[in-house]
Amino acid sequence: MADVPVTACVVIIGNEILSGRTPDANLAFIASTLNTVGIQVREARTIPDDADCIVETLHTVRDRFDHVFTTGGIGPTHDDITAEAVAQAFAVPLVVHPDIAASIRAHAERRGLSDTALTASLRMARIPDGAALLPCEHGTPGFVIGNVHVMAGIPSVMQSMLRQLAPQLRGGRPMRSRSVRADVGESAVAAALGAIQERYPALDIGSYPFSDNGRYATHLVVSGHDSALIDAAVAEIETLLATTTGKV
Amino acid sequence: MADVPVTACVVIIGNEILSGRTPDANLAFIASTLNTVGIQVREARTIPDDADCIVETLHTVRDRFDHVFTTGGIGPTHDDITAEAVAQAFAVPLVVHPDIAASIRAHAERRGLSDTALTASLRMARIPDGAALLPCEHGTPGFVIGNVHVMAGIPSVMQSMLRQLAPQLRGGRPMRSRSVRADVGESAVAAALGAIQERYPALDIGSYPFSDNGRYATHLVVSGHDSALIDAAVAEIETLLATTTGKV
Repeated sequence: MADVPVTACVVIIGNEILSGRTPDANLAFIASTLNTVGIQVREARTIPDDADCIVETLHTVRDRFDHVFTTGGIGPTHDDITAEAVAQAFAVPLVVHPDIAASIRAHAERRGLSDTALTASLRMARIPDGAALLPCEHGTPGFVIGNVHVMAGIPSVMQSMLRQLAPQLRGGRPMRSRSVRADVGESAVAAALGAIQERYPALDIGSYPFSDNGRYATHLVVSGHDSALIDAAVAEIETLLATTTGKV
Repeated sequence: MADVPVTACVVIIGNEILSGRTPDANLAFIASTLNTVGIQVREARTIPDDADCIVETLHTVRDRFDHVFTTGGIGPTHDDITAEAVAQAFAVPLVVHPDIAASIRAHAERRGLSDTALTASLRMARIPDGAALLPCEHGTPGFVIGNVHVMAGIPSVMQSMLRQLAPQLRGGRPMRSRSVRADVGESAVAAALGAIQERYPALDIGSYPFSDNGRYATHLVVSGHDSALIDAAVAEIETLLATTTGKV
């Protein structure tokens, strides 16, 4: 099983991401954290706060990937519909979890919360029947049902959840990678780089161009499971760069 | 037709985004630029540099949305496979576009490019048969075939393409929105906010919580087509906030 990749899909739920108002700040953290436990994010979908979209997306991706992670839509307001939609996707009722409800009540009492605010907060105690709670230091509770992990959208809260959750997940071998910055345009190295990729079929060699003060440069990233193989490919790339002019 | 929404899906192609190495820097710009011409991004998918994934994703989304916009994978290196995959999705051959090839040759001559680099660059002249070129100030050419617009992944290049392209697209009425910052937790306003949403079914009222120096606050965002209606809802929200304590 060591080399069978363990895969994940991230589902980012939020109108604010799709409107362009808020750039997503979660995918990169989720992907790198999951990689440390040997889980590779193979797809991410950003979808609106719409129950039908959430249900349909979950139906598709939970069969296709080993793990699914959602972010967003588990707060106390009317537009927080993720828990309901996940329950619908799993065809189970939404039930009040007594531990979350007790913790929300205790918090409300400590802070002198109004009854209205308490009632709103208790929306967050509703999770799909059969779901288990995610480890959580903060107020907003995440949960897992089947292979779907439902996390908060606020980056600091999501990060706290995932840090505790990740070591408990079934993973595989982490991908390792090394990056070399090449201050040449991609065309100058494309042919030789393609040849190196062909000699190292077990590795994935990516070229990620960027513009630095109007000049194009590129990050050459070598990824795979075998560190020695990665080092060998990186050495070939460094030799290539040492003999390449910057003309593009 | 004025109120039939014109929709789009953004397909972000790139292993570097899925590995967590590079946060996506394009979706927010694409979404806000498209909104100015009345096109609403309804979904975004981030997928790997894998021909099968690209083909399958395009098959699904081009039927489902009015417009599709891809970013990434149109450079000269071996991992740039977007043009090939789009051709495959449309079941047409990949052909050399004479104008792009001529422009690449002229550029190579001006810069004294090696033959190897020229050959690599000419990969970028291959577009699906029947595709039209996108307007472009930079070197990397984007193209459109059917309702699929294929753009560069480098943000500055993509932005230049989309700024020129957007006014030519078929759009609808732009969504307008106003945002009010509430320095209270969401629970304190959730019930009243839900009631306001019910009174304004033509609007979309979102609550986007964030953590500011360890205190929760939230952005309340009112969106819709009718500015007067938005103003009315915002006035109600402001009245609500003026009478809400910050206790959460």
